[in-house]
Amino acid sequence: MRPYEKDPKAIYAESFATVRKEARLDRFPSSLQPLVTRLIHSCGMVEIGDRLAYSPDAYNVGHAALQSGKPVLCDCEMVGAGIIRRYLPAQNDVIVTLNDERTPALAQEIGNTRSAAAVRLWEPHIEGAVVAVGNAPTALFHLLELIDEGFPKPAVILGFPVGFVGAAESKAELAANSRGIDFVALRGRKGGSAMASAAVNALAAGLPELDK
Amino acid sequence: MRPYEKDPKAIYAESFATVRKEARLDRFPSSLQPLVTRLIHSCGMVEIGDRLAYSPDAYNVGHAALQSGKPVLCDCEMVGAGIIRRYLPAQNDVIVTLNDERTPALAQEIGNTRSAAAVRLWEPHIEGAVVAVGNAPTALFHLLELIDEGFPKPAVILGFPVGFVGAAESKAELAANSRGIDFVALRGRKGGSAMASAAVNALAAGLPELDK
Repeated sequence: MRPYEKDPKAIYAESFATVRKEARLDRFPSSLQPLVTRLIHSCGMVEIGDRLAYSPDAYNVGHAALQSGKPVLCDCEMVGAGIIRRYLPAQNDVIVTLNDERTPALAQEIGNTRSAAAVRLWEPHIEGAVVAVGNAPTALFHLLELIDEGFPKPAVILGFPVGFVGAAESKAELAANSRGIDFVALRGRKGGSAMASAAVNALAAGLPELDK
Repeated sequence: MRPYEKDPKAIYAESFATVRKEARLDRFPSSLQPLVTRLIHSCGMVEIGDRLAYSPDAYNVGHAALQSGKPVLCDCEMVGAGIIRRYLPAQNDVIVTLNDERTPALAQEIGNTRSAAAVRLWEPHIEGAVVAVGNAPTALFHLLELIDEGFPKPAVILGFPVGFVGAAESKAELAANSRGIDFVALRGRKGGSAMASAAVNALAAGLPELDK
C-alpha cells in the first residue's frame, strides 16, 4: 500500500489550495470565490469554473436569507443529505417535498414529473428562501414557469440539474432570464446533488475548514 | 419559456438513448453495460466511460450478493440517500456508519479521518457485501489496508471517491490490486456520491425505467 494523507485539516487545505492554483477564481466577485471553490471541490473538476453563470450578488443575498432563518428547498433527498447542518447559521429548515404523499397525484394532475410537482408544494416556504436544484431539469423548468405565473420568489436559485434531457436547456433558461432572482448555475449537462449541496454549504459558511 | 419534455418515461428513454449513441459501451461486458449507462446518466458525462476500471464479473457478483440479502455499505449519507430502495431485490440494509457515535473517538484513536474510522464499524456486515464509496479517498484507502490485515472481504467494491487529494491515488491502488475482490472504479479525480448510488442501483435492478 502506498502512503496517503490521513489528516482532515491537511486534506482540506491541500484540496482548496489545488483549486486556487488550477482554477480561474479571479474572474468571480470575491464574495463568490469560496462558493466556486466548494463547487469545484465537490466534483474534482476545476474546468467547471469556466462554465458557471451567476449574478454578482448571489452570495450576499443567499447568505443573508440563511442568516434571517429562511429555509433551503431541495429537489431531491441527496441534496438535503449533503447539506452540513452545523454550518447553517439559523438552524434553517431543509425541505424536500419529492417524497411527500401528495406529490404523485399532483404530478398526474399537472401532467409533469414528480420532481416538478414537488416544487408546487414549496409555495408556503419559498418566499425569500434558498432553492437548490441538483437533479431534475423539470424541477427548475417548472419553478421558472410558476414564477412567471405569479408564484412567490425565492432569494436565490442554485441551478445544478444534471444529464442529457433538459439540464443544459433549463439552466440556459435560468441564465438568460432569472426573473430578477439571484442565481448560480452550471451551464451544460454537468451538475448534480453534490454541487447543489456544496453551493448551499458555501452560502451558509464559506470555507470554515480553513479556520479550524 | 421554451417547451420541455415532461414525461418521465420519455425522459429516461431519451437519456439512455443518448448514452448509447455517444458512449463506447461495446468495450464493456454486456452484463456491465447497464451499470455504465447509469453511471454516465448520473453525471451527464459520456467521457467517463473511457476511464472506468473494472473486473468483468463485477455485475454478476454484486447482483448475486444483493439477491442473497447482503447489505450495502456506504461511506456517506448522500450515497445512501441516492439508493432507490424499491430496486433492492431483498429489502437489503443500507448501512452508513459515518455518523455513528463511536466514529469520532475511533478516528482519534487510529489517527485517520472519520470516514476511515467509519469503515472499521463495517466489520460485522462486510463479508460478501456491496461497498459503495462516493466521497472519501481515505475510506477506500483504509478499507484496502484493513483487508491486507485480514479484515473480512466484501463481494464488490464500487470505488468513486472524488477530489484532489487521494481520490485518483486510492482508485489507482484498487485498480492495480483489488485483493481478489470484484470492483468498478472511475480513474482520476472525478467521482461522487451520485455515481456510487447509480452503481448500486444498477447492481440492484439494471435499467428498469425502460420496462415501465
